Amino acid sequence: MIEALIFDVFGTVVDWRNGVAREAEAFFACSDRRVDPIAFADSWRAKYQPSMEEIRSGRRGYTVLDVLHRENLDATLTEFGLDDAVDDEGRARLNRAWEKLPPWPDVVPGLEALRSRYLLAPCSNGSIGMMARLARFAGLPWDAILGADIAHDYKPQAAVYRASAAALGLAPEAVMMVAAHNFDLAAAREAGLATAFVSRPDEYGDGPVGTPDLAPSDDWEAVVPDFLTLARQMEAGG
Amino acid sequence: MIEALIFDVFGTVVDWRNGVAREAEAFFACSDRRVDPIAFADSWRAKYQPSMEEIRSGRRGYTVLDVLHRENLDATLTEFGLDDAVDDEGRARLNRAWEKLPPWPDVVPGLEALRSRYLLAPCSNGSIGMMARLARFAGLPWDAILGADIAHDYKPQAAVYRASAAALGLAPEAVMMVAAHNFDLAAAREAGLATAFVSRPDEYGDGPVGTPDLAPSDDWEAVVPDFLTLARQMEAGG
Repeated sequence: MIEALIFDVFGTVVDWRNGVAREAEAFFACSDRRVDPIAFADSWRAKYQPSMEEIRSGRRGYTVLDVLHRENLDATLTEFGLDDAVDDEGRARLNRAWEKLPPWPDVVPGLEALRSRYLLAPCSNGSIGMMARLARFAGLPWDAILGADIAHDYKPQAAVYRASAAALGLAPEAVMMVAAHNFDLAAAREAGLATAFVSRPDEYGDGPVGTPDLAPSDDWEAVVPDFLTLARQMEAGG
Repeated sequence: MIEALIFDVFGTVVDWRNGVAREAEAFFACSDRRVDPIAFADSWRAKYQPSMEEIRSGRRGYTVLDVLHRENLDATLTEFGLDDAVDDEGRARLNRAWEKLPPWPDVVPGLEALRSRYLLAPCSNGSIGMMARLARFAGLPWDAILGADIAHDYKPQAAVYRASAAALGLAPEAVMMVAAHNFDLAAAREAGLATAFVSRPDEYGDGPVGTPDLAPSDDWEAVVPDFLTLARQMEAGG
């Protein structure tokens, strides 16, 4: 019996690429520097997994994603020759781009439908503060903020999924992980959770950062094109 | 500049005494045992602080409040001569009484008013799961669940207030603790937070567990009779 659904956020719930690009575009529109906002978003995001790998590997202690994002922003500004173009206050403001990302169109109605039967929470690598502010921006009706910040480690480490279920007082098998990425679901299943795959073919656009998982890699408990379909399937099956 | 308000829950947001008594009354109504539900609630609650003191003192590792509540329930049933009257499943069900507590009448409209300007979260000794389910029951519009479960220690330990502010990525002085108990506010101020006192004269009724703080013990940043007044004062002052 599933009692809670927990969600990957970047890519699964929100469109980080167009969201970050929009914030970068608005930010640099007021300056005299020309920046390709999509290229900027892709370059910033390309540093995401390597920066978390330092923590997953144990080479660095747990550091919240806000700090990693800021370090990666600094490196991205250097790459784009913008070191002298953005002061500290501007960098702090631009770093908040990750709290202003648009949800995919099915997300809010899908969560509202799922909410009548399940507890809902993000299981993201984003910090509690980042996820709380993003939820306000995007209208996400979470019951709690779970994920990396609860476990002090980063997905796909098993501790993140297990700590998220435990925080709700639930056994892993009473919790379903929802994600657009097969690696995330594989790790969640390994940790004992149920799994749901949702297709997000537009996450990476035609950029160099990654390629979307167009199909499930395994027999996940649910495979759906969007959150509304997930809500209908869960209602029919539960 | 205050950016978030965090709240004590038992006594400040919800009426635990009448709530637990109502659940106990409904539970024992189906049995042939007569139980004074208010006395039962008071006896259960009387074990709350001593059980957390084991953890605060370091004599026992962090143990979620759901488990402490269950141990205290078992002891309360023994006291009331009800050892043989409630099986394990019944005890687990009765333990959920703490997730079904009515908010004081001003709470939901007050939080809705405060929500337009501030992030809102509980800073309770309750676990994340307990607080999430209580929020569903009582209609509390939290942005995140903070408190003991984030810090792995119990209020009034300073770590609980500090970890709650840090989880939102905020300095302590950007967060205001709201409570009906002076000791809670004193500890929050010691940890660097702003403080708001709200009167809850009916928390303990005429029971033996405690006496309400009818007046502030110090010059808290806000002193109000209810959450709606707090919202108005914050709007006028901010």
